[in-house]
Amino acid sequence: MEKIREDLNYERIIMGVDPGTNVMGYGLLGINGRKLTPIVMGVITLNKMESHYLRLARIYSRITGLVEQYLPDELAIEAPFYGKNVQSMLKLGRAQGVAMAAALARDIPIAEYAPLKVKQAVTGNGGASKEQVANMLCYILKISQQERPELLDATDALAVALTHYYESAKPTTGNTAKSWEQFLKQNPNRIVKR
Amino acid sequence: MEKIREDLNYERIIMGVDPGTNVMGYGLLGINGRKLTPIVMGVITLNKMESHYLRLARIYSRITGLVEQYLPDELAIEAPFYGKNVQSMLKLGRAQGVAMAAALARDIPIAEYAPLKVKQAVTGNGGASKEQVANMLCYILKISQQERPELLDATDALAVALTHYYESAKPTTGNTAKSWEQFLKQNPNRIVKR
Repeated sequence: MEKIREDLNYERIIMGVDPGTNVMGYGLLGINGRKLTPIVMGVITLNKMESHYLRLARIYSRITGLVEQYLPDELAIEAPFYGKNVQSMLKLGRAQGVAMAAALARDIPIAEYAPLKVKQAVTGNGGASKEQVANMLCYILKISQQERPELLDATDALAVALTHYYESAKPTTGNTAKSWEQFLKQNPNRIVKR
Repeated sequence: MEKIREDLNYERIIMGVDPGTNVMGYGLLGINGRKLTPIVMGVITLNKMESHYLRLARIYSRITGLVEQYLPDELAIEAPFYGKNVQSMLKLGRAQGVAMAAALARDIPIAEYAPLKVKQAVTGNGGASKEQVANMLCYILKISQQERPELLDATDALAVALTHYYESAKPTTGNTAKSWEQFLKQNPNRIVKR
């Protein structure tokens, strides 16, 4: 596979993954100084495949393909710590493990964030809906309505990448904003020019 | 890595894996006609590593190394379907997923067996202890006391490979043996000469 990292010309690329057993979202965030650029985002659809192994194989080959194509510096993964039952958690763990292996195979460090943490980091509210996270993400990264993907798994994945960017930049803590306006006023550095 | 498959000269090689988050067992079974040969078995110790990611990375690199070295035709994995809690099942799922990815990367088919199925296949008793499985396995495969590994995770892994061999050979069903003697009498084909 052709390596296009040089053409992309970013100081740092964070790959975000929102793993699920039916749909897996991915999003790549390019960073130059404080300028953030959404490189690509999308979903890997799995629910048309009946076999559990075919799903895992598809996750592995697609994530490996993205890693080889964009050569991310880090992988950020959205990882719920609680689930409905042990059976679904085992399946989710396998999907996560396979995605992680694609990064481990290239010594790419992995960071994981609970859904609440992602919502908190992006919107300032741990109880935000997926739509609110997507809205705020598109606002922060200046993603137009046309560019916005249909499936929220894709924006979720990019949101995890953004969360990792914020966390690794160690922002000021103690955010207690109750609205977007208030949150943006408290966090002017989170409005990114591109 | 050097490929030694040709030197091994088997018609078929089954790799068995008993995944755990502290110790992962592996065992490779060589098959020529009805002659079964334990090629190698051992454990990947993980409990000395503090980081969850280092453990997953170690599983991935070790399983990948074994796959590259022995070029197995199939991977058989021991997979419990129930666990203590969702947290431990997520971790187990990740360990399984990473091991599976090493096989998926080379298009090696995966089969999984519940612990009860392995015990049933090897000893004829789904309630057999790990020691009983190891004893029977060593008897069937003519593994001497000296060759026998200390950790039962290794024999467990080889037992999964043997289970897959039995299952793929579609043995007669309806086994109801209550003792080893009875089981062996009912299944003379399971005593393998090497």
